[in-house]
Order: sequence, then C-alpha cells, then structure tokens
Amino acid sequence: MTIAKKIKSSISQSSMIRKMFEEGILLKKKYGADKVYDFSLGNPNVEQPGEFKRELIKLAAEIIPLKHGYTPNAGYSETRQAIAGKISRTTGLKMSADHIVMSCGAGGALNVIFKALLDPGDEVIVLKPFFVEYPFYIENYGGVIKYAQTKTDFSLDIAAISKAINRRTKAIIINSPNNPTGKVYSKKNIAELARLLKEKGRAYNKAIYLISDEPYAEIVFDGVTVPSVLKAYPNSIVAYSYSKTLSLPGERIGYIAVNPKIHEADNLISALILCTRIMGFVHAPALMQRIIARLQDVAVDVKVYQKKRDLLCAGLAKAGYKFVKPQGAFYLFVKSPIPDDVKFVKILLQKNILAVPGSGFGGPGYFRIAYCVDDATIVNSMKGFAEANKESA
Amino acid sequence: MTIAKKIKSSISQSSMIRKMFEEGILLKKKYGADKVYDFSLGNPNVEQPGEFKRELIKLAAEIIPLKHGYTPNAGYSETRQAIAGKISRTTGLKMSADHIVMSCGAGGALNVIFKALLDPGDEVIVLKPFFVEYPFYIENYGGVIKYAQTKTDFSLDIAAISKAINRRTKAIIINSPNNPTGKVYSKKNIAELARLLKEKGRAYNKAIYLISDEPYAEIVFDGVTVPSVLKAYPNSIVAYSYSKTLSLPGERIGYIAVNPKIHEADNLISALILCTRIMGFVHAPALMQRIIARLQDVAVDVKVYQKKRDLLCAGLAKAGYKFVKPQGAFYLFVKSPIPDDVKFVKILLQKNILAVPGSGFGGPGYFRIAYCVDDATIVNSMKGFAEANKESA
Repeated sequence: MTIAKKIKSSISQSSMIRKMFEEGILLKKKYGADKVYDFSLGNPNVEQPGEFKRELIKLAAEIIPLKHGYTPNAGYSETRQAIAGKISRTTGLKMSADHIVMSCGAGGALNVIFKALLDPGDEVIVLKPFFVEYPFYIENYGGVIKYAQTKTDFSLDIAAISKAINRRTKAIIINSPNNPTGKVYSKKNIAELARLLKEKGRAYNKAIYLISDEPYAEIVFDGVTVPSVLKAYPNSIVAYSYSKTLSLPGERIGYIAVNPKIHEADNLISALILCTRIMGFVHAPALMQRIIARLQDVAVDVKVYQKKRDLLCAGLAKAGYKFVKPQGAFYLFVKSPIPDDVKFVKILLQKNILAVPGSGFGGPGYFRIAYCVDDATIVNSMKGFAEANKESA
Repeated sequence: MTIAKKIKSSISQSSMIRKMFEEGILLKKKYGADKVYDFSLGNPNVEQPGEFKRELIKLAAEIIPLKHGYTPNAGYSETRQAIAGKISRTTGLKMSADHIVMSCGAGGALNVIFKALLDPGDEVIVLKPFFVEYPFYIENYGGVIKYAQTKTDFSLDIAAISKAINRRTKAIIINSPNNPTGKVYSKKNIAELARLLKEKGRAYNKAIYLISDEPYAEIVFDGVTVPSVLKAYPNSIVAYSYSKTLSLPGERIGYIAVNPKIHEADNLISALILCTRIMGFVHAPALMQRIIARLQDVAVDVKVYQKKRDLLCAGLAKAGYKFVKPQGAFYLFVKSPIPDDVKFVKILLQKNILAVPGSGFGGPGYFRIAYCVDDATIVNSMKGFAEANKESA
C-alpha cells in the first residue's frame, strides 16, 4: 500500500465533514454566497485589532539583523519573557521565560505536548463533547483515549472523570471556553478537578497532567473570566493561541506555558523544546513572535461576538430550539430536534444552512453552530432554522 | 516517568551538539562575538532580496478580507498554482495546484511526508553523511533507517544503495545540494538512481518513493543546476523550503511537490493534506504563503555565498586541509587532520572556532563548516585553522 494504514483509515473517517464542506461549496455556487448560511467553520470574522495592523506595518519596514532568521527552538527570549510577565501579573505565579515554549498555534502546542509526554499505551482523558482534532493529536503518539461525559450543562462531571482514571492515566485535556459548547468551567469546578487529580496522583504515585487548551481564553462574555489552571493545580500545562485573541489563525502563533511547580519541570521543558524541533516545526514563525511580544494586552473587541451570540440565541429560542447559553468562544451547541443529528443537519442543508453534526464531536443529538459570521448571516438564517424545526417535529 | 522514554533518550543524544552551542555562547561572552568564529549553524546571513522586503511592506498595509485567517490545509490555491506553474515551466511536467501542499518549511514537509507514508517497520534509506534531523523525522513515525554510504566525492553510490534495498523499503531520502557536504548530484547520477529504484520496484512489485529534500536548490555555484528528480523518476516527492532561497528560515514556509505520475497520487495527496492538519501544522503561515506566491522568480544573490566558499576553500587548502570543493549550499565537509573528529573540533574550539563534528552527521573523520557568515569571520579564522592543523599533526 502507498500510504500508512492508519492515515488511510483516518481519511475515510474524515470524509463526512469534508462532504458537508464540499456540499457547502456547491450550494454557494448554485445560490450565491449570501444565500447560504455557513456556520460550519471557526474562522474568526472579526478584523485584527488596529494595534496588530500598526505593528505589522512598522515591523515589516524595520531594519533588524536576521529579522527572518531562525529563532531558538523555544522562541525569542524577549517574546517568552513578555508572555511570562503577563501570566505572572494575572495569576501571581512566578513564571519566567524558561516556562514558555512558543508554538505554531494551539494545534502545534498540543501535538508537541503529547509527543513529549506520551509513551504508547499511556491514557489521556478527553471530555465529551470534544474538539474534533483531539483524538488525532493523542493517537499520533500512540496515546489511548478514555472518554468521560460532561454534565448536561457541559460542566465538568468529577465523578465521571474519577471513573475514567486508572494507573495508565497520563493526562487529561480540558478546553475552556469550550469548542463546541462555549462552556467556561467555573473556578469551583476547576478546583474540584484539581482536588481529584491530586488525590488520584497520590493513589497511583504519579503525576497526572492537566493540559488546558485555551485558544478562546479572551473570548468571554457577561464579565466572566477563565480561572487559571496554573494557579489551581501544579501539574498543569497551558496550550495557548493568538488565533482568536488577535483574529489571526492563519499565522500559526501560540505558546505552551508550563507550571513552574510541575513534576520534573526541567525535563519536561527540554522535551517540549526538542519535540518542537524534531517534529519539523523547528520553532514558531519569527515575525509573528516579534509582533505578539508587543501586543500582550491587546485583543479583539469581544462585544462583537457577544452581540452575535445574543442575536443567535434569541433567534433560535424563538424558533423553538433548546441549548445552554454559552459564556465564551463563538460556538453554540444546540439540541437537535430529532435524535439523529446527522439527519437533522441534512434538513438544515436543504434550507441552505451549514452546521456540523454533534456526532463529530462525540455529542450525538446536538449540532454545532460557529457564529463567527456576519450578523446578516445569523438574521437571515432564522427563517430556515424555524422551518427545519417545524418540519422535523 | 514524566516524559516519553523515546524523547528522554533523544535529549541525552542531542546533548553533545547542545554542549558545543553552549560553549560557543560562553566563548562569545568571554572574548567578544567578533573574536569567536562561529561556523556551527546554517542560519543564512545574506539579507532577503529587496523584492521580499517590498512585498512584505506592501502586503502588511493591504486590506484583504481574512488576510490572517485560516487557509485551506493544503494552502491557498493561488500560491499552489504559482508554484506548480514554475515547476511546469522549468521541468516541462504538467504540474497543477493539486500536486502542491504548502508546508512549514522543509522540516515540516518531511515530517508530513513520512507521517503519510510510513507504517511502523517500513524502511527508509538515508545516505551518509546525512542531515542530523533525518533520523528523528523517520523514527517519529516508526520508520526504520537503513544507511548507505556515499562515495568519497559524496556522490550517490548506486551499488551501496542497491544493497540497502529490500522488500520492506518504502522510500529513500536524498538531499542535493547536500547538508553537510555541499554536493550536487549530477543528472547522470540521479538517472542511475532512478533506474535502480524502478528495477527494485519491479522486483518487489511495489513503489519505492524517492523523497528529495531541496531547500538549497537555488544555492548553486559555477553555473551548476540541480537536476529535477520529478523529471527523472515518477514515484518522486520534493520537499522545498524558501528558507535559503529568500533567506527567511524563521518564517517556516515551504512546500511538498508530488509527481503527477506518482503511484496512487490522489490517495497520497489526501494523506499529505490530512497529516498537515492533524499534526497541528493546520497549514503553512498565511502571510508568507501570499508573499512567496509573488516571488517565484526571486532569490538571494548566490554569488555572495560563492565568494565565501572560494575564500574559505582557498584559505583551508593553504592551511593544509583536505576537502571536496562543494557546488552548492553553504557547507564545507572537511577531512579532520586526525581520525577523531570530536577531539579535533575541541582543538578548534581552543582557537575560538566553532565547527560541528562529522560524527553527528554519520560522517566520522570529518567536520562541518557552515560558511553563511561574514567574510571577516572566514578571513580571521584562518590563523586558528592553520594552528589547529599544525598542532594536531
């Protein structure tokens, strides 16, 4: 066979979402893009903050020796220092540049973390519903996934997580604000998780790592803030991306932040740096490293997303849909009016609405709406949503 | 244990080069950077062409919707089209955008290729001396490395390669112009390799892939050109990077070019795109994709490197060193005056000269000089080189 067996099977598994994507392209060709309501992709549509544009223009013209040359594998120390400083200020922890490894977005960060941590057969707990890429990221390195269900409000179910832990458990990955649910775990909920992981760590005499995937950390509404896992639990690692904070997912820039108190910190940091190198990332893109160092306190206007959320939630509630109102990210995970979410998404497709079945996220009976779209798309889609709900009743 | 066993052992293996690197930093602190002759790293010191700077400044200011948003996993079609067009023009092959997958440099490209191709136990032939990262890139995906020695002039030894091929052989990786030797394989030599691979492919009834790592393809001297492997052999894949052509290794931009006639082309291309996604690259950096689309016929002035090569070769020959004069890249692989290259590199270190032992490249008895440095570094290092040779006699 030409390609690796594992990859061959992954391609055929991926084909459902791809088919949806391709049908969307056909629909847009047929009816015009403005007549198709595409809620399928989490590609931020809010423009970059003015500060980003200004810094990019400035930096493009600046004369700096080897401006586009290799950086250290961990990234520029100035950039890592700026990030460590910000985390120290906001959490009160003593982070230094040494605890930061720059990455190609959160996707790159998570792959580097799993590569550094996992021996084949090591188990990683994934909470349902989950970001579709996690299973790939874990299985890339021979990790075994143990699923645990979240509660009906999508908060952490500590008892379910407790049941999933055993002596082979190496880590748990959480994502708050969550894709696909928009859930932000409360400080209390995170504290309960930390207590459980400490308890289990003692019982099995090992460190159980808490990997927190936080690309949406700044995309929060109603005055909510995302509690710091670094403060809550020593064996914690954060994967961060500027993709959403600065609306630049295409530029592949993020970081790994390692808790200064983590078990075998030096070894782990060396491993993360080595993995960044040998996986072919080599290091995060140089120009973007320089820019984000200057933009630690800048973010897109989250009120724009909040308004979209409110518009969407009000419209869907009126159309008779059931959902938990999210406090972050730009996703809504809606209860499908019929149990078969794949079938319901096909009904939506007949109304020129593109959504993703919850089954793809390990959440059957739901569908995901990515509302990082024009307000008009939200408003104009409501007729179709109402009809689809009615017809499936 | 905290980190993966495999990574733990890789860290300790990597420590020799790191020690050298750290000693270099100490030396520079002690004597001043201008008194230390650092030939250890292949970080291009020739500035980006003016066209790059102009396009970057222009593009930074341009208003393009979702300019920094996600691109397709394979990359922008305009960029892939531009690259396919250039390859078609220079080779006469019919390449289309579909045959190009954008990558995070050649390092990213090679990891994606190996991930897509290799089942655990599949063998990959690596030619000695080799780029230090190849063993990592192959073992990342459970591949098994089979080494074959090149000839004393560093050309392909077809008989040695033939001996290394068996029914488990999935691919061979070549690198021309070569790191660490600067060798450019001749058209005849490539044709001989293609003939062998076809013969062996028929004998084992399978495709043996020729992976050609070509980041230095434009860095060639004396009117030499790099023969196209795509033209020479159908089952060929090129990994390319703009790191050296445009002097921007920090920006992580390159591509994979798949031969249109390759075995199971569609499957392979789907696999490369999927692997780009699930390994966390997601896609190559967006801004750089746009820029290189506009710079397909631009390259740094290679005469600058050629002059450095001539300066270095003349100086070292006068100091009594033996080497094969390279026709490309910016490396010189010099015969160590004593058999123990690690020991000789330590002698050079006493002269404040940083070089890398050939042992690290699978070429014991040699040392590597990366001459992408100021001319003054080359000139001023000659006294130390001469003394080191004399003292070790």
